[in-house]
Amino acid sequence: MIPIVSIVGTSNSGKTTLIEKLVPELVRRGYRVATIKHDVHGFDMDREGKDSWRHKKAGAHTVVISSPQKLALIRDVDHDADLAELGEKYIQDVDLILSEGFKRNNQPKIEVFRREMKRELLCTREDNLLALATDQPFDIGVPCLGLEDASGLVDLIEEKFLKEKEKPRGRLRADGKEVPLSPFVQKMVLGTVHGMVSSLKGCENVQKMEIRILDEKGK
Amino acid sequence: MIPIVSIVGTSNSGKTTLIEKLVPELVRRGYRVATIKHDVHGFDMDREGKDSWRHKKAGAHTVVISSPQKLALIRDVDHDADLAELGEKYIQDVDLILSEGFKRNNQPKIEVFRREMKRELLCTREDNLLALATDQPFDIGVPCLGLEDASGLVDLIEEKFLKEKEKPRGRLRADGKEVPLSPFVQKMVLGTVHGMVSSLKGCENVQKMEIRILDEKGK
Repeated sequence: MIPIVSIVGTSNSGKTTLIEKLVPELVRRGYRVATIKHDVHGFDMDREGKDSWRHKKAGAHTVVISSPQKLALIRDVDHDADLAELGEKYIQDVDLILSEGFKRNNQPKIEVFRREMKRELLCTREDNLLALATDQPFDIGVPCLGLEDASGLVDLIEEKFLKEKEKPRGRLRADGKEVPLSPFVQKMVLGTVHGMVSSLKGCENVQKMEIRILDEKGK
Repeated sequence: MIPIVSIVGTSNSGKTTLIEKLVPELVRRGYRVATIKHDVHGFDMDREGKDSWRHKKAGAHTVVISSPQKLALIRDVDHDADLAELGEKYIQDVDLILSEGFKRNNQPKIEVFRREMKRELLCTREDNLLALATDQPFDIGVPCLGLEDASGLVDLIEEKFLKEKEKPRGRLRADGKEVPLSPFVQKMVLGTVHGMVSSLKGCENVQKMEIRILDEKGK
């Protein structure tokens, strides 16, 4: 089960702006992130006149566009899916899901609050509130961090949802630089190397291994 | 496994136009259709400035937009997936998949040919060619149908891929009119009704059933 954290707040409170700060910070630390946006009013995704738009317009229930780098899908649905269902059915290969909206679900939440909006807080601690991102401190028993403090918020997310995963089982250095590996990528890369080496004669039960690939000069 | 038929042809031969004719004809007959478009050059899907576009731009690996009627997903991939993989991983709840492009796969194909393009045929019968949609007859051992003959092409598709499924197990008439039910919808609607009725006392092992809902006048 991929952990989900919801970014909630009244409209125009700055949810998308906060997500734009959190995602790069998570990526910098080596995690792969998915986002889910709830759009209760429906949305236009495709561009009029494009082939995929023409497929959908002709009555296709689902349209997939596939390229070597990117994949897109648009489909009809018959109900407003909750976060857990969306995560399970549509998202693979990532370490964390951030959602925008979905304030009425029971996933852990970060609420965005800006004083100038002159609104009340949406959540209490009982709503599984992890933290507030706010320009005004509140005494409600959860950490209050600044609206710009992506690093502090990601520390909280990492501590609570990403660190409990298995400890690093190896590392990768490329041209002398450590490459950050998310738990997912780590499992894949190290698992592949381990599987390959342990198929060699005499290495069947090896635990630790080191592979070095040298440069042209043999260094 | 959902059957897949590929619509192939040289560029500008009219593949999208043919799909725009096939999909409504299939829908009219009660089938749910998915399409897959192969776009080897990549594509722009989202609109600049929208929240989901901002999520992706910030570095999200996957972005999902969910509404009560429609769902969209954009994700990074690390390889050019083949049709079978796309069908299996991303498409549910439909009776048939039509693909545009993917001429180098081994799925059944319909090739679109227009004389004015002054090109050779892409496929031979050995390429799992089901039919030609063409304005010029060819003697290559597969049916040649007109470029506008959606009905004839869908007859072929239906005969080969949709009729072999389980025979109709029931039917639905609404206000005196027969409602066409695709195998998928039929299974869902009839299965639900059957499950509900067989939970009633005395109906545990019922096989045949008929439910009528009368109009206001009791007719």
